[in-house]
Amino acid sequence: MIHNFNAGPSILPKEVFEEASRAVLNFNDTGLSILEFGHRTPMFESVVSEAVELVKELMHLNSNKEVMFLHGGASTQFFQVPMNFLTKDKRAAYLDGGVWGSKAIKEAKLFGQVEVLASSKDKNYSYIPTGYALPEGAAYFHYTTNNTIEGTQMHGIPATEIPLIADMSSDILSAEMDFNKFSFIYAGAQKNIGAAGVNLVVADKDFLETGNKGIPSMMDYRQHVANGSMLNTPPVFAIYVCLLTLRWLKKIGGVTAIEKINHQKAELLYSTLESIPLFHLPVPQQDRSKMNAVFTMQDPVLEKMFLARCEAEGMIGIKGHRSVGGFRVSMYNAMPLESVVALTDLIKDFSNKYVQ
Amino acid sequence: MIHNFNAGPSILPKEVFEEASRAVLNFNDTGLSILEFGHRTPMFESVVSEAVELVKELMHLNSNKEVMFLHGGASTQFFQVPMNFLTKDKRAAYLDGGVWGSKAIKEAKLFGQVEVLASSKDKNYSYIPTGYALPEGAAYFHYTTNNTIEGTQMHGIPATEIPLIADMSSDILSAEMDFNKFSFIYAGAQKNIGAAGVNLVVADKDFLETGNKGIPSMMDYRQHVANGSMLNTPPVFAIYVCLLTLRWLKKIGGVTAIEKINHQKAELLYSTLESIPLFHLPVPQQDRSKMNAVFTMQDPVLEKMFLARCEAEGMIGIKGHRSVGGFRVSMYNAMPLESVVALTDLIKDFSNKYVQ
Repeated sequence: MIHNFNAGPSILPKEVFEEASRAVLNFNDTGLSILEFGHRTPMFESVVSEAVELVKELMHLNSNKEVMFLHGGASTQFFQVPMNFLTKDKRAAYLDGGVWGSKAIKEAKLFGQVEVLASSKDKNYSYIPTGYALPEGAAYFHYTTNNTIEGTQMHGIPATEIPLIADMSSDILSAEMDFNKFSFIYAGAQKNIGAAGVNLVVADKDFLETGNKGIPSMMDYRQHVANGSMLNTPPVFAIYVCLLTLRWLKKIGGVTAIEKINHQKAELLYSTLESIPLFHLPVPQQDRSKMNAVFTMQDPVLEKMFLARCEAEGMIGIKGHRSVGGFRVSMYNAMPLESVVALTDLIKDFSNKYVQ
Repeated sequence: MIHNFNAGPSILPKEVFEEASRAVLNFNDTGLSILEFGHRTPMFESVVSEAVELVKELMHLNSNKEVMFLHGGASTQFFQVPMNFLTKDKRAAYLDGGVWGSKAIKEAKLFGQVEVLASSKDKNYSYIPTGYALPEGAAYFHYTTNNTIEGTQMHGIPATEIPLIADMSSDILSAEMDFNKFSFIYAGAQKNIGAAGVNLVVADKDFLETGNKGIPSMMDYRQHVANGSMLNTPPVFAIYVCLLTLRWLKKIGGVTAIEKINHQKAELLYSTLESIPLFHLPVPQQDRSKMNAVFTMQDPVLEKMFLARCEAEGMIGIKGHRSVGGFRVSMYNAMPLESVVALTDLIKDFSNKYVQ
């Protein structure tokens, strides 16, 4: 059996794979593949509208929200956001909390003045910066809710009047939170929502209206809203996989239900690692991510042995990002508790053998 | 039996659907779905590199060419091209030969001076404009090789020293041509190359070097080249479907082989339509597209009857674009000759019944 701890693209529910596979041969009993299916058809329009409605329902969105499925991944949003919302007369506030957040900052600087409120770069982004003041009158405040590479997660939403913009690529729909507090949310789909090749965007209608004019059509969120995510040919299959994943999440009880399981998985893994001195957790407890657990070992020889043992037992994707080293275990929504149990059993067994 | 004449997303080879469907369950016998497969793995890197090599081989590209697979469709290229190559000191020359070309012009104007050399808008883009002079010193000359909506196609490549940029979304790899004459080619995949959600870009290395600096990373072709189309998480599945389609094209004999079949299909359909006074071909013979045949009928009642008959016999996607009306029959690479034979048989039978 394979336990897929990939950081993204990552595990999706088995039934999503099965239904997506069927749709590539025969979509909704039409006799046509989803890959050859016209996007401007009532049947595909209903795929998009059902996916939009499921996002609204699962996130408990108010009526001021628009939901879009757009081309590209979060990296496209890094520049599309400031292209739309950073104006000459204002500054945008950013939190520099991880590699992806720092990339967003770099892109924003191309479009105007950026104020970095705080950074955890001094310790390789191994903690969530705190103690900063949110500047009044900023165009927006941008942060990354979960740092995939560094295994940190921001628990709680800053209290501010400034429009909040969040990159939720790696923890969207993983726990209940008041999504309505954000003016703008984006997430590459390939972790909790679906397959690579599409972005989910959730935005306030009135915030969208404040966006810059005279930008390219494909970058203009208002045009995507006006065209129901079909300004051009959308990434049809990627959106369909989102729909299947959203349906699955609703079926198992929605965000409240998955939050409990995600909590169990993280609790089990972190408590196991904490109980064994062989392993080191670089992230302070309060900042640890429930999606991506990062840990290291002191001894590089033991690290190699541990990695080899994991691979031998079908546990893939646990090697840490090269900028952090060690290990990273990603436990997105579709990761079953059983896989984390198998991993913690292996961790305990490994430490029993090598640490006497 | 269904005959899928969709304009795009459109028919792909049956074996592509079958193999793509299998890969969604079990990619290359890894026990993992292609949808959960890490893009930074040797196995997926070899998917990209094989697809790149197949493009080079099938297009007979010289060693000065770079091949990229990028997020988005051609609509993203409409602004990405001028963002990279339109400079303050130069003008870009565009041909206004169809709805898509006119959209490209609109986006280019956001980035600098645009000179529209000729337009066929006066007759609803039903012909390919000629008789224009290519201005010396222009940044580039952009045109659409095949106009999907209007059923026109530019046969031949303009002789010029200006860098040539072509949108080949709807006829790439459909016929042999000297692709090396172009400085830059782009094509949304969802007609001849694969499924929606990815762009193929083929560009001269030295032309790419002339691109503007200080643009967003995701828009900078040089960064995509430097990162082997993996600057960010690529549209993994869409690229894999491209690979399968390119493999199929090579197996059946490459572009030379498909060109013969495409010629047969178009010849059969156009000659049939020309022989029956019931049908009108709005495009002059020399400008007709071998990919998208557009035709109308004088009598709107007969048009409805013809459409109903086609649908009853499983011929889908033949309704013309709303801006042109009538019918549009798309016959991309994967469309078998048998489907065009079935359609022409129906056309003849229909006209025998209703025109005495």
